[in-house]
Amino acid sequence: MSDHLFSERTKRVPKSFIREILKVSAVPDVISFAGGLPHPGLFPIREFKDAFTRLMEERGSESVQYGPSEGFLPLREWVSERYQKRAGLDISPANVLITTGSQQALDLLGKVFLNEDDRVAMERPGYLGAIQAFSFYSEAIIQVPLMGDGPDMDVLEATLSEKRPKIFYAIPNFQNPSGQSYNLEKRKKLADLCTRYGNILVEDDPYGELRFAGTDLPSVTSFMESNSVLLGTLSKITAPGLRIGWAVGEEAILERLLVAKQAADLHTSTLTQQLAWQYLTMYDVDEHIAVIREVYGRQRDCMIKMIEQHFPTDISVTEPEGGMFLWVTLPEGCSSVELFERAIREKVAFVPGAPFYVDGGGMDTMRLNFSNADESAIEEGIRRLGRCIEEYMIE
Amino acid sequence: MSDHLFSERTKRVPKSFIREILKVSAVPDVISFAGGLPHPGLFPIREFKDAFTRLMEERGSESVQYGPSEGFLPLREWVSERYQKRAGLDISPANVLITTGSQQALDLLGKVFLNEDDRVAMERPGYLGAIQAFSFYSEAIIQVPLMGDGPDMDVLEATLSEKRPKIFYAIPNFQNPSGQSYNLEKRKKLADLCTRYGNILVEDDPYGELRFAGTDLPSVTSFMESNSVLLGTLSKITAPGLRIGWAVGEEAILERLLVAKQAADLHTSTLTQQLAWQYLTMYDVDEHIAVIREVYGRQRDCMIKMIEQHFPTDISVTEPEGGMFLWVTLPEGCSSVELFERAIREKVAFVPGAPFYVDGGGMDTMRLNFSNADESAIEEGIRRLGRCIEEYMIE
Repeated sequence: MSDHLFSERTKRVPKSFIREILKVSAVPDVISFAGGLPHPGLFPIREFKDAFTRLMEERGSESVQYGPSEGFLPLREWVSERYQKRAGLDISPANVLITTGSQQALDLLGKVFLNEDDRVAMERPGYLGAIQAFSFYSEAIIQVPLMGDGPDMDVLEATLSEKRPKIFYAIPNFQNPSGQSYNLEKRKKLADLCTRYGNILVEDDPYGELRFAGTDLPSVTSFMESNSVLLGTLSKITAPGLRIGWAVGEEAILERLLVAKQAADLHTSTLTQQLAWQYLTMYDVDEHIAVIREVYGRQRDCMIKMIEQHFPTDISVTEPEGGMFLWVTLPEGCSSVELFERAIREKVAFVPGAPFYVDGGGMDTMRLNFSNADESAIEEGIRRLGRCIEEYMIE
Repeated sequence: MSDHLFSERTKRVPKSFIREILKVSAVPDVISFAGGLPHPGLFPIREFKDAFTRLMEERGSESVQYGPSEGFLPLREWVSERYQKRAGLDISPANVLITTGSQQALDLLGKVFLNEDDRVAMERPGYLGAIQAFSFYSEAIIQVPLMGDGPDMDVLEATLSEKRPKIFYAIPNFQNPSGQSYNLEKRKKLADLCTRYGNILVEDDPYGELRFAGTDLPSVTSFMESNSVLLGTLSKITAPGLRIGWAVGEEAILERLLVAKQAADLHTSTLTQQLAWQYLTMYDVDEHIAVIREVYGRQRDCMIKMIEQHFPTDISVTEPEGGMFLWVTLPEGCSSVELFERAIREKVAFVPGAPFYVDGGGMDTMRLNFSNADESAIEEGIRRLGRCIEEYMIE
């Protein structure tokens, strides 16, 4: 078939470089710091088995029938109660739309808000899944530099006032890819700026519960009266294969998202929604999250310690208080793509930073995931990577 | 928040009338012929329980981890082998993309093929989910009248040659909403016309396996060399709450759909894909489908017999050889929306036909589902509906 039949929008969206890398990394013996995968040893498999049996016995056919597009009501209640309890947010089930992972929420938000000539602003470096989702709806993605404590606020204000993006997309907790978080002052300021310039804030929070140091900070959304959508997911605190996320927002926005949701997949799997709810009500998820935090904290410590020992001293690395990623900056002039090719031959993988930049920058950066591999694999993998860097820098 | 922030496309897509009706119909005591729901008594609940236990024991964490965007390879193999075996189609796993229900395939196809000024053609009356999905991408949906044996071929050819739609969307087997099927000659002719005019054929086949009379006919796709996408689903032969469908097509198309799929929800639930595959390999699904066919055939017979007894003789009804729906045409001048309001008070529900027409037609038509309700409920429901029609026509 001939290419002219494809839509214009599909021609400008790249295939996910990360998902291609994941394929290379899936080869046996490769130690992979590339994906954003939770540790498989922490999935509650035995608990799922018991929850599933109970679900089939108590709900049976209802749990595999078509369901409402908004999502399974008891799960929406669980989500809203958790925000009330954890963050004091005034959220009711009517403010919660269940989505097929939070990736779907990005797609629905693009669909509902973006005309072709609208702009989207986000962090630099920024989450690749958001770049992909929004690129289908808008040609113009603008990035605002991310510092250690949040966006560069001068650039942010200039961007909002001059470029008037329809959406500002942010991951204030343990950002993907950088691992960095916004401080309290910048959260308040961001809320003020969005309110002043009238754009939509999309606040994505997949990692907020994975804090192993420091203290929780309020969401940016908590400082806004309207025009914000907060995204959450079970992927990092339960299991990503369920594909359960949610969008929280005012009813005027949810109503439009709901129409887009109907057209996108009718509704998220009844079975995974009900299984998740059954699991969440039968077991103490906070106890489970405490274990995840402890393990990831240990793995992060291990990775940083190994980097200090095995990487040249002119390489910088972030030290996030939670989440799943470290962000490494190589000495100027180095190319992380060249390093990647060398590393994959030595059977260690990571994600080169360039795909997180829409402007061709970030060539000397890379993302390292510390959640998926055990400490022993981290030790060996960082040793290998250190050798690769050393050899690369000598040549 | 103010309405001006929403995209233009979201303003032209109506909320699904059917899903609103389903809410009204979900009240206890209402006998509903409204939804397109499979019979809940036929879901393989015990089998799912055993398959799930085995899955957790044998695959464990892998079955709830992130997975490939293309879908779970063994399930894609199952799909391609089934097409080879049932229809002799030359399909390999590389031609299969797993989607979150076949509704998602419609959304991805719209995204990948339709520019704002492209047209889509489909049957009149046409499937509401397709109208919704395509409306997000294109303003212009054109309908071609459906006869008892397929589209009006003169109108179809005039439409393809003059309006040059990018996509023709068809449900050749037991169409939703009409229950009608295309005969062999029209299948071949449709394939020829699509090839001649160079548009994409989207052939949706959710009901093809639910045949209880007559003999299977080849797909339209089987008569085309390229430019066609065939959609299938487990919703009607296993359970819709799994949200598992697929798109089958040439690799050049699948490659673009895959990029859209990544952006839409990363991938369909690993867990429901693997559970479905485990079920399909542990049990004989053809035996299961034979039971569904027999039950639905009996329920169709019952509904038609009751209609003959209890509806006025100047009402016409289709007699489909499979699927889940009957299509009723009231005497001219009658409004099925007015009838619906009366019926819901008498605790019986159906879907008025108007939402299946994009041009304001179909006011005197209605869709009756015969798969969801037992024969005793069908008897009582059609009796109630007959009384409502009689009273309505007297006034």
